[in-house]
Amino acid sequence: MAGKSQDDGQTVKAIGWAAREVSGAISPFDFSRRAPGERDVQVKILYCGICSFDTEMVNNKFGFTRYPFVLGHEIVGVVSEVGRKVQKFKIGEKVGVGTMIGSCRTCYSCTHNLENYCPKVILTEATSGGCSNLVIANEDFVFHWPVNLPLDLGAPLLCAGITVYSPLKNFELDKPGLRIGVVGLGGIGHIAVKFAKAFGAKVTVISSSENKKVEAIEKYGADSFLVSSDPGQMLAAAGTLDGVIDTVPAPHSIVPFLDLLLPRGKLIILGAPMEPFVLPIYPLLQGGRVVAGSATGGLKQIQEMLHFAAEHKIVADGEVIPIDDINTAIKRIEKGDVKYRFVVDIGNTLKSA
Amino acid sequence: MAGKSQDDGQTVKAIGWAAREVSGAISPFDFSRRAPGERDVQVKILYCGICSFDTEMVNNKFGFTRYPFVLGHEIVGVVSEVGRKVQKFKIGEKVGVGTMIGSCRTCYSCTHNLENYCPKVILTEATSGGCSNLVIANEDFVFHWPVNLPLDLGAPLLCAGITVYSPLKNFELDKPGLRIGVVGLGGIGHIAVKFAKAFGAKVTVISSSENKKVEAIEKYGADSFLVSSDPGQMLAAAGTLDGVIDTVPAPHSIVPFLDLLLPRGKLIILGAPMEPFVLPIYPLLQGGRVVAGSATGGLKQIQEMLHFAAEHKIVADGEVIPIDDINTAIKRIEKGDVKYRFVVDIGNTLKSA
Repeated sequence: MAGKSQDDGQTVKAIGWAAREVSGAISPFDFSRRAPGERDVQVKILYCGICSFDTEMVNNKFGFTRYPFVLGHEIVGVVSEVGRKVQKFKIGEKVGVGTMIGSCRTCYSCTHNLENYCPKVILTEATSGGCSNLVIANEDFVFHWPVNLPLDLGAPLLCAGITVYSPLKNFELDKPGLRIGVVGLGGIGHIAVKFAKAFGAKVTVISSSENKKVEAIEKYGADSFLVSSDPGQMLAAAGTLDGVIDTVPAPHSIVPFLDLLLPRGKLIILGAPMEPFVLPIYPLLQGGRVVAGSATGGLKQIQEMLHFAAEHKIVADGEVIPIDDINTAIKRIEKGDVKYRFVVDIGNTLKSA
Repeated sequence: MAGKSQDDGQTVKAIGWAAREVSGAISPFDFSRRAPGERDVQVKILYCGICSFDTEMVNNKFGFTRYPFVLGHEIVGVVSEVGRKVQKFKIGEKVGVGTMIGSCRTCYSCTHNLENYCPKVILTEATSGGCSNLVIANEDFVFHWPVNLPLDLGAPLLCAGITVYSPLKNFELDKPGLRIGVVGLGGIGHIAVKFAKAFGAKVTVISSSENKKVEAIEKYGADSFLVSSDPGQMLAAAGTLDGVIDTVPAPHSIVPFLDLLLPRGKLIILGAPMEPFVLPIYPLLQGGRVVAGSATGGLKQIQEMLHFAAEHKIVADGEVIPIDDINTAIKRIEKGDVKYRFVVDIGNTLKSA
């Protein structure tokens, strides 16, 4: 198929698992993808992580899910086909595909290495995601997979990893010796702790209860642990952190986290509660403090992040499961019953319907 | 008095004008100040700007005004006495004193050139402000007045000037070619336009009506003008600005200004509405955008700002008035009836009661 235009209407057959409607179970699904164009790479999928965003898309939380919906945007595989003008990849090479497979390439975001913020970004799942046997993307949206980075639990780096790496870099919270708070030790938070530690930060895990204290300190090497529901602990830590990474997806007050910041400290919000935050101005005025949002990262930064992760042996922690367990996995994600990510073993368990 | 400690209980006589109670008029007032200690500078005051913060303090808006209250924290004068260990200043030198006359010098803020954010900062007005014949401060809180910077309309730079200069510098909005929005063409906003233009920005003035359009463009050199109450204009300008300086002191929505920002753009809030803002997360997540606050600036940056202002011929626009007109001036500030600052000619008009 190499050399064919992506607009010529040619297709290739694919198999996957899809949700058919808002409340439905995910089940095997035969479909077709566009044939790879001259600058496209076709990837035989080996592993695909499941992100909580996937579970929300399955349930149409954001109102734009189109069914049948094949979830998955943390894709690791092997190049199985290349268009004739592809320069970066060869057949047989291990690669990753993340949250996007295309963007306009001409807007402000695309010309500033911020393709993730392109208004015309094509989300991977919009063309059927990674719980399938293959994916096709322009080579610029495909990443070299470092040799020593595990394929399975490395997969979540393509979303959860870049989601924390990008703001730590972009907001200059990657300097050794900084004091970084991570709110919520979950699918995003545990990777935030790993990257922050790798950057040389002193890391404080902030959680609503003591439950994860031992794990935060002993397993993840956090330097301290704060119970956000304990006003005494929070007051004692006021004004001590250079940055706080807030991974909480549910509605919550950000004021207690603003109060933890040093002057010119930064609160980075990664979760997406549907209700707006209440933002009193004094915690910002007093200290020149910052509240910012961040969502994944650009192409250049994703490749950089993968190499950094490989160098520092950072992967997600979690369970590698067969595709047949995907419905159970989604229910467990919804209940918070996973430490901390699921990765589907596509290569060994996906079969034709 | 040179060489005396500031703790020895010695005082010097001073005269000024003070508010005696929350609703009262400002009237002549005899009082005493501590005598200058060995590292203090005594300044004979020539000019003092009136900031809207002063009018709010007169009315006890923030609840911590202590009467009798001598307003004024934009002070320009001449050194009339120096303590024996003073190194930076000589008698007869022109100097400025701004919003603070002391801080702890040991906290995080004080050791990071952010004395303005020191929890123990001593606001100038806490020890009686600049509507008086003299002021006494540790030499580190006194600034060299550039030779070619006007004494009278330069005075407001010590508060209004640093209030806009500091965030433009600290948030890297001082690079030539950036697109900067300034919300509100008033006492702070008109100086924000001047500094932003001096940094080489393309400046958009954003105002609730067309009233100031001609002035913004013809007098202040703004490159464009946006009426914030016109949804069509605001939509057409969406996603075009690197930074927005929001000087509006009244409660308002920040969402329309967030929508004006480019990806990674920054909204800097300088006003202090008493009600909290409503902050939906999507405008921040989509683009990695920033909301920050900022309040004046540190000692090093104030001196730097004064030299920059002198070099670029930046002063406030306004009216120089005799002290006898101060009550009228305060009423006019409350009504927004001044373009754009009042400066009291202390040297020529302040007399003993």
